[in-house]
Amino acid sequence: MADDATKITLRESEIPQRWYNINPDLPAPLSPPLHPGTGKPIGPAELAPIFPMELIKQEVSMDPWVEIPDEVLRVYRLWRPSPLYRAHRLEKELGTPARIYYKNESFSPAGSHKPNTAVAQAYYNKLEGVKRIATETGAGQWGSALAFACCLFGLECTVYMVRASYEQKPYRRILMETWGAKCFPSPTDMTNAGRQIRAKFPDTPGSLGIAISEAVEDAATHDDAKYSLGSVLNHVLLHQTIVGLEAKAQFKLAGDYPDIICGCVGGGSNFAGAAFPFIKDKLSGKDITILAVEPQSCPSLTRGDFRYDFGDTAQLTPLLKMYTLGHNFVPEPIHAGGLRYHGMAPLISLLTNKGVIEPRAYHQLGTFEAAVTFARTEGSLPAPETAHAVRAGIDEALKCKDTGQEKCILIAYSGHGFFDLAAYDKYLTNQLQDHEYSREQVEAALKELPVIAEPSA
Amino acid sequence: MADDATKITLRESEIPQRWYNINPDLPAPLSPPLHPGTGKPIGPAELAPIFPMELIKQEVSMDPWVEIPDEVLRVYRLWRPSPLYRAHRLEKELGTPARIYYKNESFSPAGSHKPNTAVAQAYYNKLEGVKRIATETGAGQWGSALAFACCLFGLECTVYMVRASYEQKPYRRILMETWGAKCFPSPTDMTNAGRQIRAKFPDTPGSLGIAISEAVEDAATHDDAKYSLGSVLNHVLLHQTIVGLEAKAQFKLAGDYPDIICGCVGGGSNFAGAAFPFIKDKLSGKDITILAVEPQSCPSLTRGDFRYDFGDTAQLTPLLKMYTLGHNFVPEPIHAGGLRYHGMAPLISLLTNKGVIEPRAYHQLGTFEAAVTFARTEGSLPAPETAHAVRAGIDEALKCKDTGQEKCILIAYSGHGFFDLAAYDKYLTNQLQDHEYSREQVEAALKELPVIAEPSA
Repeated sequence: MADDATKITLRESEIPQRWYNINPDLPAPLSPPLHPGTGKPIGPAELAPIFPMELIKQEVSMDPWVEIPDEVLRVYRLWRPSPLYRAHRLEKELGTPARIYYKNESFSPAGSHKPNTAVAQAYYNKLEGVKRIATETGAGQWGSALAFACCLFGLECTVYMVRASYEQKPYRRILMETWGAKCFPSPTDMTNAGRQIRAKFPDTPGSLGIAISEAVEDAATHDDAKYSLGSVLNHVLLHQTIVGLEAKAQFKLAGDYPDIICGCVGGGSNFAGAAFPFIKDKLSGKDITILAVEPQSCPSLTRGDFRYDFGDTAQLTPLLKMYTLGHNFVPEPIHAGGLRYHGMAPLISLLTNKGVIEPRAYHQLGTFEAAVTFARTEGSLPAPETAHAVRAGIDEALKCKDTGQEKCILIAYSGHGFFDLAAYDKYLTNQLQDHEYSREQVEAALKELPVIAEPSA
Repeated sequence: MADDATKITLRESEIPQRWYNINPDLPAPLSPPLHPGTGKPIGPAELAPIFPMELIKQEVSMDPWVEIPDEVLRVYRLWRPSPLYRAHRLEKELGTPARIYYKNESFSPAGSHKPNTAVAQAYYNKLEGVKRIATETGAGQWGSALAFACCLFGLECTVYMVRASYEQKPYRRILMETWGAKCFPSPTDMTNAGRQIRAKFPDTPGSLGIAISEAVEDAATHDDAKYSLGSVLNHVLLHQTIVGLEAKAQFKLAGDYPDIICGCVGGGSNFAGAAFPFIKDKLSGKDITILAVEPQSCPSLTRGDFRYDFGDTAQLTPLLKMYTLGHNFVPEPIHAGGLRYHGMAPLISLLTNKGVIEPRAYHQLGTFEAAVTFARTEGSLPAPETAHAVRAGIDEALKCKDTGQEKCILIAYSGHGFFDLAAYDKYLTNQLQDHEYSREQVEAALKELPVIAEPSA
């Protein structure tokens, strides 16, 4: 291909046919999820009321590759293969000898990487006769991806949307409704969990933790409904590896290979999708720097403990071994809502603990500065979450400017910021602030956690 | 290629290198633009204060092909070639034997076809040493495209945005500002035109006509600034032909060719871009139906007169021979703001008058119904303007269902509806209405027009 190519594009026939499962390649075994009540390892049967069996199998699979069903591939083709861009204009603006690439997931109908797993999850649910999927959503990125996927497979979709977002950010709600989903401001009076919270706190703005509890209860108490999660779990990360597998094929076409990979992490699915196929090479000896970028106001990887904790505030989910700030930690209200999670995917946590992944935390203002530089050179407007990866990519390129090293940098460009323009407005008019996490708050939140022993092998 | 392909994708190297100029192929010569004061044909020198000479040359060029400069092609590559989709899921939903394709322009950074000309115009202005471009915008589609283009070429961009939109629809304004443009609610106190209106009507919500007057005055009174228009003019339509030229190459790859082309028309640039390269074949004898789709509430092609009229309310622009509802016609406030224009591109007007293009008008509710059907099958959310083309495509496909004909239908998919979700919300909650144009209002508006004689050849 020409050296000055802007996009490296695969043909439809070149979409990878398998997802990559990193589980068998890990440098140490994953600690099992534990039952929230008994503290004992949780089995497939206990998850069956809320997940279809095929996804439970994927969650614990030790097969290195998982075939992507044809029906899923057919939907993927609406936006996949996604383009790998060479950021010539950004490089020029920075005056760096580095080669910067970005894998652009913003062209999916929902505008982010989320549909990669939403489509797969909807398919497996449909296959097992499920009629309806319940889920939670904060600002609506995940809810809109699942609404889209359910719509294409003829499934009903119930979304418990954090009340504050439901009221203040109607656009993603309307997007979900356009795709036929039913959205409710959480807490609702449709579940026990919701009713209890409303009785205690009638004016609560809701939280992701409460919304998870409602969606799980909905699925567990209705035979024809299941629950779906948009990040954290192994099978979700598995589905996202299509991103990195495509990127590898594209780098091969370009005759290049990344020295540095930058991805933002909230629950970890976007990062894992882009990075895991390259981490496979790193685990085989390849020299790559893998940067997991999180907000300073919610620094689970850089400041949290690696231990068992609950996935939700209400302590209803299984206990997961992960980097956590404590399930009672409430991050500052930064605009990168998708990164405001107290924990981290167990797979990413383990790889970070083993030194394979290097975590890094950024302040909000710096990420918006990077996002505007990106928009003014490459044209595209990054989501505030994506802006964290862009910031890291720019910083690495600027280091190359200092050292003269011609490194190859890959930015995982997870989504667009068309629904985040109010945040850009605040940045451009100097109304944005940086939020430091409170060390005291984290220490207090961690101190409250019960100490859970690692189960014996 | 496989018969079940979802997208027909060209490589970067296959981007057309020339725009197609339909002017020499027209079945009759275009009537010249006339000076608004003298009524005499207007010459290049009179346009020089507001347009760069290269664009004035393109405006009157009789060359069938115009080379696309390398610098423009390099920016095009950020989103071009755009994919041609086969709408398998929509076909299945409709149960039609028709093959439906859509050429998707929604992946440009500004989300529509508009950057195809914005980038070219910014380039030619830059080449001639212009420092700043002034333009008007309604809801912001055009303004954001020009802001993006100016940003990449290092030009300043001043956007006079209709005050009502500036205040009620801040998102596209923020997008423009993120790309570095300066936006002002029009009428401003920065121009004579603006000051006069404000003195008379202090509370005016503004109008596109007033904003045009302000932008033209700004350009005409500043040596280092020029003016830019996003539709109607020949050179604007010329730049958009990249869309149809790519589509032709893609149909060739697919081994198919359209029997019917559907595009929405406001000023006409999106429609012309998709259709003109196929109209070239039609003028050489090929049997194609070319549908220009407009709103019932602003039916210039289906109800207007073919005559000389002003492009703006304030009667400052040259007189153009076109289908018009009269420059004083104020359409109902439908959500497809880009189609609310009293006139029509002279090129499209002539081809409609000669029977080459078939006009059709739709009510708003039907277009939103089609848009939701499209979103629920193909995933993408059409802009309200684009929804007019989608409605026509669906109707033609349903006709095929009745007749059993296996026609090939091309929909010009001009942009996404992410900034129009409030309109979708109104549709989904039954708050949208249909607006009939007022026959009396059109007759009155046309009666007021001075009768301008065709200049002798």
